Amino acid sequence: MSDIMKQIVLASRPDGAPTLENFRLEEHPVPTPAEGEVLVRVHYMSLDPYMRGRMDDAKSYAANIPVDGKMEGGSVGEIIASNAKGFEVGEFVMGGFGWATHAVAPAAGLAKVDPATAPITYSLGVLGMPGLTGWYGLTELGKPKSGETLVVAAATGPVGSMVGQIAKSMGLRTVGIAGGAAKCKMAVEHFGFDVCLDHRAYESAADLRTALKEAAPKGVDIYFENVGGKVLEAVMPLMNPHGRIPICGMISWYNEGGLGADAIEKTLTAPKLWRTILVNFLSVNGFIISNHWNRMGDFHKAVGPMIADGSVKVQEDITEGLENAPDAFIKLLTGGNTGKAMVKVI
Amino acid sequence: MSDIMKQIVLASRPDGAPTLENFRLEEHPVPTPAEGEVLVRVHYMSLDPYMRGRMDDAKSYAANIPVDGKMEGGSVGEIIASNAKGFEVGEFVMGGFGWATHAVAPAAGLAKVDPATAPITYSLGVLGMPGLTGWYGLTELGKPKSGETLVVAAATGPVGSMVGQIAKSMGLRTVGIAGGAAKCKMAVEHFGFDVCLDHRAYESAADLRTALKEAAPKGVDIYFENVGGKVLEAVMPLMNPHGRIPICGMISWYNEGGLGADAIEKTLTAPKLWRTILVNFLSVNGFIISNHWNRMGDFHKAVGPMIADGSVKVQEDITEGLENAPDAFIKLLTGGNTGKAMVKVI
Repeated sequence: MSDIMKQIVLASRPDGAPTLENFRLEEHPVPTPAEGEVLVRVHYMSLDPYMRGRMDDAKSYAANIPVDGKMEGGSVGEIIASNAKGFEVGEFVMGGFGWATHAVAPAAGLAKVDPATAPITYSLGVLGMPGLTGWYGLTELGKPKSGETLVVAAATGPVGSMVGQIAKSMGLRTVGIAGGAAKCKMAVEHFGFDVCLDHRAYESAADLRTALKEAAPKGVDIYFENVGGKVLEAVMPLMNPHGRIPICGMISWYNEGGLGADAIEKTLTAPKLWRTILVNFLSVNGFIISNHWNRMGDFHKAVGPMIADGSVKVQEDITEGLENAPDAFIKLLTGGNTGKAMVKVI
Repeated sequence: MSDIMKQIVLASRPDGAPTLENFRLEEHPVPTPAEGEVLVRVHYMSLDPYMRGRMDDAKSYAANIPVDGKMEGGSVGEIIASNAKGFEVGEFVMGGFGWATHAVAPAAGLAKVDPATAPITYSLGVLGMPGLTGWYGLTELGKPKSGETLVVAAATGPVGSMVGQIAKSMGLRTVGIAGGAAKCKMAVEHFGFDVCLDHRAYESAADLRTALKEAAPKGVDIYFENVGGKVLEAVMPLMNPHGRIPICGMISWYNEGGLGADAIEKTLTAPKLWRTILVNFLSVNGFIISNHWNRMGDFHKAVGPMIADGSVKVQEDITEGLENAPDAFIKLLTGGNTGKAMVKVI
């Protein structure tokens, strides 16, 4: 066992899109678990769009990462030293270990992962945070009804693909949006969307809207919002009365953190937007899945069998090596991944 | 009984704020009720902000009033001729009789009003559409909890005052916003708001926000949205996590129907607005009370006793004469009324 722990820290705050210069690889001695803690050798770490927000100063869900602080994130790994009752060396656990090869963590906050039940990578994707985000947001806030029409972007991503597959299984017409012909093909052929539109093929929101109208001839009942920007702009006027918009993220805007106070004042009012919400009786709900971890059991009960019988497909995009995490993360923010992005650390 | 029916029609669509020229008084013979209909002599007609939307071409809740069509609205009056079983001459009924001295209407759609139970004007205000709007929006969409803080504008209006009083009775801190010192005094002394801010005393949304911060030191849990504009802009950044925003109207924008397609594109995106909804897990719900008439019985059961025991106060602003309805309506749109606006037609 190596006694060196590698980790990636936030070297500087990005101005717009992050660059490799915003990250720094460091080496430290492997830490020792205190009473109640375990030492974990990370096998896979997750890359997720929300991490972009943590790199900014702006108010967001959670505290930001300080400059020189370790990049945060969920990972799955093996316990290699334990100072906690009930957690044995050799067991696998999932937790917020950050961008690192090793981590010590209080055992109490960790979820055990059984490699015999499913590949451990599933705990970061289809059976983990992104999968739960899609399932919870769709079923609890989207309130899907058979015969309705759903639109979701990033359709081949771990959230969008979960949303589309669950919605399809509930009898909805599912319209995916993705970047590029290859992803659109995958959305339809692999994930079973009724139709998928390539947002790169439409120059303006208005053009995309025209295509969406054809793809969703009865209007849109649920728009599962995970991208913002052009897609949101295209979809809003197509919302049916009593439509629902669960919002879990807006990746297309994550690099626009530089909007100043002027822009805030201007866009907070947005009369036409509010009018759309009002006259269509829309229900718009922001959520963060960490407030709903208690639903993980229900989620596994509902979706585990669907993975087993093939009605929910898995697609992973694994980058090798912790040192390549920044590059993979930068790609993720512009849709350069295909499927759940993660890094193999061991 | 006069055999002349007076009515006010939409002479032309307003360009911005309506003027008297947009209305025209007409005289017609009093109509005769067909089978299943009654003839009603209107006593009081309601003036409500939503009527402004009906005067435009833009898509809204409901069909617009055609040019030369009768202005729409709810009224209460006495049956003076009946061709419908179970509806007797001398009974009072409430219905969408429009801006007119008389109306024939299918009896099936009418609600009987008992003048012995409460003044008939209550059926247009505190026990009618506006009261139900406030009660339903607050209790069903606002999900108030004791100890929380509520903000509502037009605090002395029939919706705002209902919202404030019900919230207060449920243990919330209630912050009203109203136009002018007199209304603010009434909001606190008559309607029991904990505090009321005069929006006219603050030049910018930022100034109003500073005052709101003091008035709502623990942040805002429920913003009952009925005005839009400066108030909305001031409140949004003060919303607490998991805050709720029921939207029943946005009177401050009703005269801005001329916003073109460019403005739509710009304001539909509004990144900072969406970000606020997302990072605070807000629940934003547009609604129109006509989808919830079925709750009228529950509403009366809950609020009737509160009116009787004085814990819900009534404030009416009655203009005499149908011919003065346009002027009273124009005033209503700029806050020139104090309490529920209606017109005494008989």
